Amino acid sequence: MDGDGAGGGTVVRPVGGGIGELLRLPPGGPVDLGAIDPGATPGLPGGDVTGERRKAWARAQVGLLGAELGRQQEMLFANAKAGTSTRRVLLILQAVDCGGKDGTVKRVAGALNPLGLHLRSFGPPTPEELRHDFLWRIRRALPPPGYLGVFNRSHYEDVLVARVESLVPEAIWRDRYDEINAFERELVDSGVSLVKVLLHISYAEQGRRLLERLDDPRKHWKYDPSDIDARARWDDYRAAYAEALSRCGTDVAPWFVVPADRKWYRDWAVAHLLRETFDTLALGYPPAGFDVRRERERLLGSVQRMKVNGR
Amino acid sequence: MDGDGAGGGTVVRPVGGGIGELLRLPPGGPVDLGAIDPGATPGLPGGDVTGERRKAWARAQVGLLGAELGRQQEMLFANAKAGTSTRRVLLILQAVDCGGKDGTVKRVAGALNPLGLHLRSFGPPTPEELRHDFLWRIRRALPPPGYLGVFNRSHYEDVLVARVESLVPEAIWRDRYDEINAFERELVDSGVSLVKVLLHISYAEQGRRLLERLDDPRKHWKYDPSDIDARARWDDYRAAYAEALSRCGTDVAPWFVVPADRKWYRDWAVAHLLRETFDTLALGYPPAGFDVRRERERLLGSVQRMKVNGR
Repeated sequence: MDGDGAGGGTVVRPVGGGIGELLRLPPGGPVDLGAIDPGATPGLPGGDVTGERRKAWARAQVGLLGAELGRQQEMLFANAKAGTSTRRVLLILQAVDCGGKDGTVKRVAGALNPLGLHLRSFGPPTPEELRHDFLWRIRRALPPPGYLGVFNRSHYEDVLVARVESLVPEAIWRDRYDEINAFERELVDSGVSLVKVLLHISYAEQGRRLLERLDDPRKHWKYDPSDIDARARWDDYRAAYAEALSRCGTDVAPWFVVPADRKWYRDWAVAHLLRETFDTLALGYPPAGFDVRRERERLLGSVQRMKVNGR
Repeated sequence: MDGDGAGGGTVVRPVGGGIGELLRLPPGGPVDLGAIDPGATPGLPGGDVTGERRKAWARAQVGLLGAELGRQQEMLFANAKAGTSTRRVLLILQAVDCGGKDGTVKRVAGALNPLGLHLRSFGPPTPEELRHDFLWRIRRALPPPGYLGVFNRSHYEDVLVARVESLVPEAIWRDRYDEINAFERELVDSGVSLVKVLLHISYAEQGRRLLERLDDPRKHWKYDPSDIDARARWDDYRAAYAEALSRCGTDVAPWFVVPADRKWYRDWAVAHLLRETFDTLALGYPPAGFDVRRERERLLGSVQRMKVNGR
């Protein structure tokens, strides 16, 4: 980390290897979320910058990462338009209430180019959605080739809230882990790079954020009394998350756990996860699908006509 | 305009009345686009800042406007969620090739909160779209209540390219002006604030931007040889735009012509048009739909349990 607090002009890479290496859960193993500190900052460059200056530095870095990701988005889009690629990237954000999904979208997706962004939020299923398989609405929301998709909640709700709140019988949600794995393998095979992120906050931090929503009238609209009901089932949700992360963390579609008690670290880490994902695609611009010299001549002819016609 | 070039911390209002007043075409009158200078900067505060510093100032102002618009978006969204309003805002962007639609989306929509943004781009109609009335795909793309919608091209293509390229018989496109007016009145009556913008560039500026696309291999993907064909019909497009703006500029849904040869002015003007539109809505936050004191007690009880359970 350089010492100028407000952030220099270049993106500084995480220390200790890629951020993905640091945050990825080993596929197939048991998951103990209690062993992961929600206040930690893995990969954050050290140095002598602390406190508020560290936060300002990370925020500035996210701005710079947004510009870098914007260039990657453009190349992804250009290749899809040229028909030379069906690649796309899909960031899946999951978290408990107040976990920071909306904030991450605002800060990270907000730093990208909206033209190449395909953002979809999933709430409680509508009556129409309930008439279909749980993956039906997900398939309809997938990003087209060339786009960076962001899912604010996802099909994982169908093994999380559906399980904890007993919205479907156990035999139904038990089958969904395998169905999700088959679905995600299909996505990966069709050119989708999946980045599955759990924003990991502590029980205490959730309490602080809920209190903020109650104490600030401008935040009342974000509060729902059912949030406290869900909070009372914290341990049940924790167990449901642990099983989902364990059963559905695969080699082709691993889970990343981002410590999220510090919002600025959360955003910084998610932006780097996206950057590293794009790096694996090694994108370039597609070649021109036309004769550049000939088009240049046609264009210069039109400029000549401009002078004659007085446009 | 203050003198610090990089922009101060506050949004400076346009001079000479609202930017909408300055850029709105008087509804019902004839339209002479040739009389509007594409390089002009109406409403831009004067002072002693010029050249590159003026550009940097305007860019910084767009960033500040983005934050202000983000707060307006949030109130719009909060009211829709609370069920107290069905209001929404829809920005419609039209322009010839290279007119700056994508750039405006990137710079202005990119400064907003993606969570409250509903961006849709319209290309040539698909076979499915062609089987329906020309407004069918438009209706499906409208922003839900609470969202700021942005249309990158729109139903106006059906009286522009459809007319100039003779994609439908004249009798068909001639009827569309009235159909568009009826449709837009319906939208306004249902709570949509329409902001219809023509990004107005010169023939010379289009030539410069096309040449840039040909001379930079990273921009080849944006170029299509048909762009030169359309450029050869510049006067036909100009006439088609003039009639669309004249016939479909109404009291409830006027047209705004934004001089767009200077990209930084274009973005600044469009951002202010949005700000002024939100100002007319006089939004506030909705009241809480629950008993705040009671919820606070429930929450503090859950914090107490945290200490007992050691979470």
